[in-house]
Amino acid sequence: METTRRLFIPVILGTIRQGRMSAHAAQFVAYQLSGRDTVETELIDIATLPFSRTDEGQAIKDPTFSAKMNRADAMVIVAPEYNHGYPGLLKHVLDTLLSEYIHKAVGIVGVSAGPFGGTRVIENLLPVLRELGLVTIFWDVNFSKIHKVFDKTGKLLDDAHPPQLSKFLDELIWMAKTLRHGREQIAIEQ
Amino acid sequence: METTRRLFIPVILGTIRQGRMSAHAAQFVAYQLSGRDTVETELIDIATLPFSRTDEGQAIKDPTFSAKMNRADAMVIVAPEYNHGYPGLLKHVLDTLLSEYIHKAVGIVGVSAGPFGGTRVIENLLPVLRELGLVTIFWDVNFSKIHKVFDKTGKLLDDAHPPQLSKFLDELIWMAKTLRHGREQIAIEQ
Amino acid sequence: METTRRLFIPVILGTIRQGRMSAHAAQFVAYQLSGRDTVETELIDIATLPFSRTDEGQAIKDPTFSAKMNRADAMVIVAPEYNHGYPGLLKHVLDTLLSEYIHKAVGIVGVSAGPFGGTRVIENLLPVLRELGLVTIFWDVNFSKIHKVFDKTGKLLDDAHPPQLSKFLDELIWMAKTLRHGREQIAIEQ
Amino acid sequence: METTRRLFIPVILGTIRQGRMSAHAAQFVAYQLSGRDTVETELIDIATLPFSRTDEGQAIKDPTFSAKMNRADAMVIVAPEYNHGYPGLLKHVLDTLLSEYIHKAVGIVGVSAGPFGGTRVIENLLPVLRELGLVTIFWDVNFSKIHKVFDKTGKLLDDAHPPQLSKFLDELIWMAKTLRHGREQIAIEQ
Repeated sequence: METTRRLFIPVILGTIRQGRMSAHAAQFVAYQLSGRDTVETELIDIATLPFSRTDEGQAIKDPTFSAKMNRADAMVIVAPEYNHGYPGLLKHVLDTLLSEYIHKAVGIVGVSAGPFGGTRVIENLLPVLRELGLVTIFWDVNFSKIHKVFDKTGKLLDDAHPPQLSKFLDELIWMAKTLRHGREQIAIEQ
Repeated sequence: METTRRLFIPVILGTIRQGRMSAHAAQFVAYQLSGRDTVETELIDIATLPFSRTDEGQAIKDPTFSAKMNRADAMVIVAPEYNHGYPGLLKHVLDTLLSEYIHKAVGIVGVSAGPFGGTRVIENLLPVLRELGLVTIFWDVNFSKIHKVFDKTGKLLDDAHPPQLSKFLDELIWMAKTLRHGREQIAIEQ
Repeated sequence: METTRRLFIPVILGTIRQGRMSAHAAQFVAYQLSGRDTVETELIDIATLPFSRTDEGQAIKDPTFSAKMNRADAMVIVAPEYNHGYPGLLKHVLDTLLSEYIHKAVGIVGVSAGPFGGTRVIENLLPVLRELGLVTIFWDVNFSKIHKVFDKTGKLLDDAHPPQLSKFLDELIWMAKTLRHGREQIAIEQ
Repeated sequence: METTRRLFIPVILGTIRQGRMSAHAAQFVAYQLSGRDTVETELIDIATLPFSRTDEGQAIKDPTFSAKMNRADAMVIVAPEYNHGYPGLLKHVLDTLLSEYIHKAVGIVGVSAGPFGGTRVIENLLPVLRELGLVTIFWDVNFSKIHKVFDKTGKLLDDAHPPQLSKFLDELIWMAKTLRHGREQIAIEQ
């Protein structure tokens, strides 16, 4: 029998940059996710996580972040594109954990100031997320020209994104349920 | 209740190059897969598929290949690394289908003449396989210096690869079962 | 003294797909290039190159294509995005040569039916072009929604692309001149 | 006439991880570079650069690092592979500059604990370095199983790497001279 426990799907805001418009995108995603009956969500702002100045990797894992990722069934990463790659501090945070991620679903929301919707940060993240044991779904959300999508208060100015986000969440929830079933019910043959 | 039908997991030999050592790797994978009670397999050699000289994409899909991919629960792609990318004809074949692949598992076997086990062709394939709707597992098999791994008759000359392959197949079968359950039992919320 | 010989910069049309809109993009690039006094250009349509049905790689190099790439100082690759990767037949053609490309400049024109301008095929090509010895310039030309950029006769319908292309060609010509100087005048220390 | 001024080619040690073996690789590269008459070098350890806790990007550029990159003709990046990607703090540092890098050469030294020589961090860096305006040369240095290459004091334990590094530096110096000529002597047509 399928479990009916709600899925825990946090949203990771992957930048600490001053004036980051990605915060509006992350809030929008978390808000939409919170409207799904089957989902519990929470916004995790990487700016609030502790960063060591003297080490990297699992040695500096934050117990609270680790517990949340352990509990998560899936996650959304909101990633602005910096020089066609991912923000350094997002990677720094992701690298602090490993077993917490395995066999869980992830969806990527790409954010860019320009016209290409963060497509390049998405491509750049794929090998990393795979190595972490995450399954990246094949729908994305792309925020191009982010300054025209939200105003400074975070109000959404267009109507193309809600349906795109909705399809993305449908797929993410499906993958989260599927992988949860696998983790809980399907043994690894040997 | 979980289905007990055997998984269909074909192995795609992704090159037509004369003297291709990848054929030995593909036969080795297919042989090991055929030893799994829960799996039915078959070697698909892309050299035997028809290629149009005048078009590309789904317009030139081969009905037999399409039927096999439709039936597949997962697949293994054996991909030699050519100039840090995938063989052109492998991509040409993959691009002829789309809906056949969705929500199925794939594992990549990288092959190289040099010391780095096809790691670069694997990285290069990731965005493509994702866009096709496939889920690439996070274990790989890497054949470095392939001319030292198999002799000309295809006899395996080392003993490191069978356990690596075995772990890879464990994971692939787990993901294939998990995604099959999802496809058959879990509805997409809307 | 700097050579004043004209640069030879062919444009490669990287798809054979029926109804390919990329042909219009390639013709537009070749036309603009032919307006530069310092450049000689030519459109190379991969559909006109011979493809072996039984082998891949340098074994099947076409002498005419080889001679053109040998003579080239730089090239433009017009690449539609197929499933977030490059067209298989484009790669099949590129893989037939190697020494012909070394220390020459390349610029990529990405073409897509959707809104993201072929950004993903560009990212996917980068490791391949580097391994071929080519230097990919850091300006691109992006044709998004190509069906709205050209009509069926190839007439350009917008006015944003000419200045984007012009900047791209400025950079490509600079890099072509710079690398030609290096090839002809600067010894490799040992 | 070609300038005869020495090239400035700093080596960037791209990790702050405790016990980082990459430091030995970086010292080895800097030592070999310092033996070239035509080159001046310096080891830049990113652990010694200031990191803002509250911002990212060019807003937090360090004037000393900026001045060094401005002066550089080329650079070597020593990058360990973390989860098939680049270290977050390396990216955080690279993202603080932009115009400083344009039309300069870069070579990548990949470091890994496993057998594949950091090939994946190299692939992952390519789109970023291109966007920064750098030209990545097509030779790499790969340190596989780094713990077997250097002892804890940094003594080199094998003899395969010096010739690999030497070829890499030959190419990097050639590209550095070539691009310097371009920056100083070749005008951008418009």
